[in-house]
Amino acid sequence: MTPDPLDAVFSALADPTRRAILARLTEGEATVNDLAAPFDMSLPAVSKHLKVLEKAGLISRGREAQWRPARLEPMGLHGVADWLEYYRRFWDGSFNRLDDFLKKAQQGDPDGSRN
Amino acid sequence: MTPDPLDAVFSALADPTRRAILARLTEGEATVNDLAAPFDMSLPAVSKHLKVLEKAGLISRGREAQWRPARLEPMGLHGVADWLEYYRRFWDGSFNRLDDFLKKAQQGDPDGSRN
Repeated sequence: MTPDPLDAVFSALADPTRRAILARLTEGEATVNDLAAPFDMSLPAVSKHLKVLEKAGLISRGREAQWRPARLEPMGLHGVADWLEYYRRFWDGSFNRLDDFLKKAQQGDPDGSRN
Repeated sequence: MTPDPLDAVFSALADPTRRAILARLTEGEATVNDLAAPFDMSLPAVSKHLKVLEKAGLISRGREAQWRPARLEPMGLHGVADWLEYYRRFWDGSFNRLDDFLKKAQQGDPDGSRN
């Protein structure tokens, strides 16, 4: 069974430093050096986080061996949004309306069926 | 520093079985026994997953010691939606419009500032 890409995405997002790196990258590309200073981290530690984010498809890296600037790949988050969309009805109130509809449907008198 | 609740939420969501359990709970409450069969898992394994989901605030458990049915707590996902909202502009095209706006603003001629 192929692993669901969401496994790696959610796992990458579970770390606050990695989420902060993503937030920083919304302002533009950044190298490992750019990221090390504000996050008060060693270069290897930053590199490790970037590898996790890259594997999850949330960032890409430039090709220049020395700099390899990281850039946000927002489409990597699109899968999360799709996944989440299904659950939205359960917190935004539309679930209650659906629930009402289903109850009425079970009673053979759904409001929506007479249109 | 208090840990960000999102750490536990994303970490809980990184497991495909836990996401499947959440999906099952959208159909209604379920006990450990209810969940063990379709997921072909041992009761302790199910219990462990439920503990992770409960700690993350994604489910709650009933009080009856024997059954303790699990139910979805959709508001636990609301934080993910809020977090994600900031990134939406980067994949839905509105970022390009924002980018254009900012470029024009830098040139002292933002389209939007004359309304």
